[in-house]
Amino acid sequence: MNDKPSVIRETDEDARKQARGLMHDAAHAALAVIDPETGFPSVSRVLIAIDADGAPVILVSGLSSHTKSLIKDPRASALFGEPGKGDPLAHPRLTVRCSAERIDRQGQAHERIRGLFLDRHPKSKLYIDFPDFCFFRLVPLDASLNGGFGRAYILSAADLMIL
Amino acid sequence: MNDKPSVIRETDEDARKQARGLMHDAAHAALAVIDPETGFPSVSRVLIAIDADGAPVILVSGLSSHTKSLIKDPRASALFGEPGKGDPLAHPRLTVRCSAERIDRQGQAHERIRGLFLDRHPKSKLYIDFPDFCFFRLVPLDASLNGGFGRAYILSAADLMIL
Repeated sequence: MNDKPSVIRETDEDARKQARGLMHDAAHAALAVIDPETGFPSVSRVLIAIDADGAPVILVSGLSSHTKSLIKDPRASALFGEPGKGDPLAHPRLTVRCSAERIDRQGQAHERIRGLFLDRHPKSKLYIDFPDFCFFRLVPLDASLNGGFGRAYILSAADLMIL
Repeated sequence: MNDKPSVIRETDEDARKQARGLMHDAAHAALAVIDPETGFPSVSRVLIAIDADGAPVILVSGLSSHTKSLIKDPRASALFGEPGKGDPLAHPRLTVRCSAERIDRQGQAHERIRGLFLDRHPKSKLYIDFPDFCFFRLVPLDASLNGGFGRAYILSAADLMIL
């Protein structure tokens, strides 16, 4: 995402707000990872909460293939934004390139993330403490915002985070 | 997706029908590709139509990064299925591992695909013939169906296609 063709607009405060809003409003996202066995990308649906610094957080089962992939290769991408009614491409969406950090269950961050995830997804209490489930922080590297036809922006990690 | 842990159910006709239904009902999907510059996966929203044999078809702009990625690396993954209301993970979704084939504008397949895409997305007539737009067939290799909590299946390409 280093090249900036002329269709990319200059990032402004409206674009930053829209991008953060898409992440913060999202209950779920499409998460892309790399399957270490085949090298293929693989995309699946995950529940999303947002950590104190603005990084998305996911709760995943160790039995699922996306978890096995992230443990071997932290490179990931997450798509935020609902398609809504009418033309799906008329609705804004955000692709965040991110590096996945597994959260140690014994570490300091776990309790904070467990709390905010439960606040966002109360039904997750049914499985949040299962031994095969774990959290990952999806630490943003940069992002591509498509605010609707002709409204494309490249954003930095700092544009997305709460500083 | 070669390992089949015990949580994977035996594929039956109901699973095949559900998987095909998720593809055929979809107006859009989340498409994951590999960015050739960084090796990261990247996921974005694309419009979907279904070709005569059951393969999903996308129409993409040559200016977009997913198109540049697919031209260099045909390995892709597409997520079908709306999250609906309530818990997003309670709704069925399908991840299809696929190989992307670019459709030559001068070839026999183009006219067929252009017609079925217009039928599915009438508003695409505004840009379908733009010189930088092109079609790809996403030829299925295999798929993972999550029919809701505890209902996981692995499907073959034949399970998804219209034979």
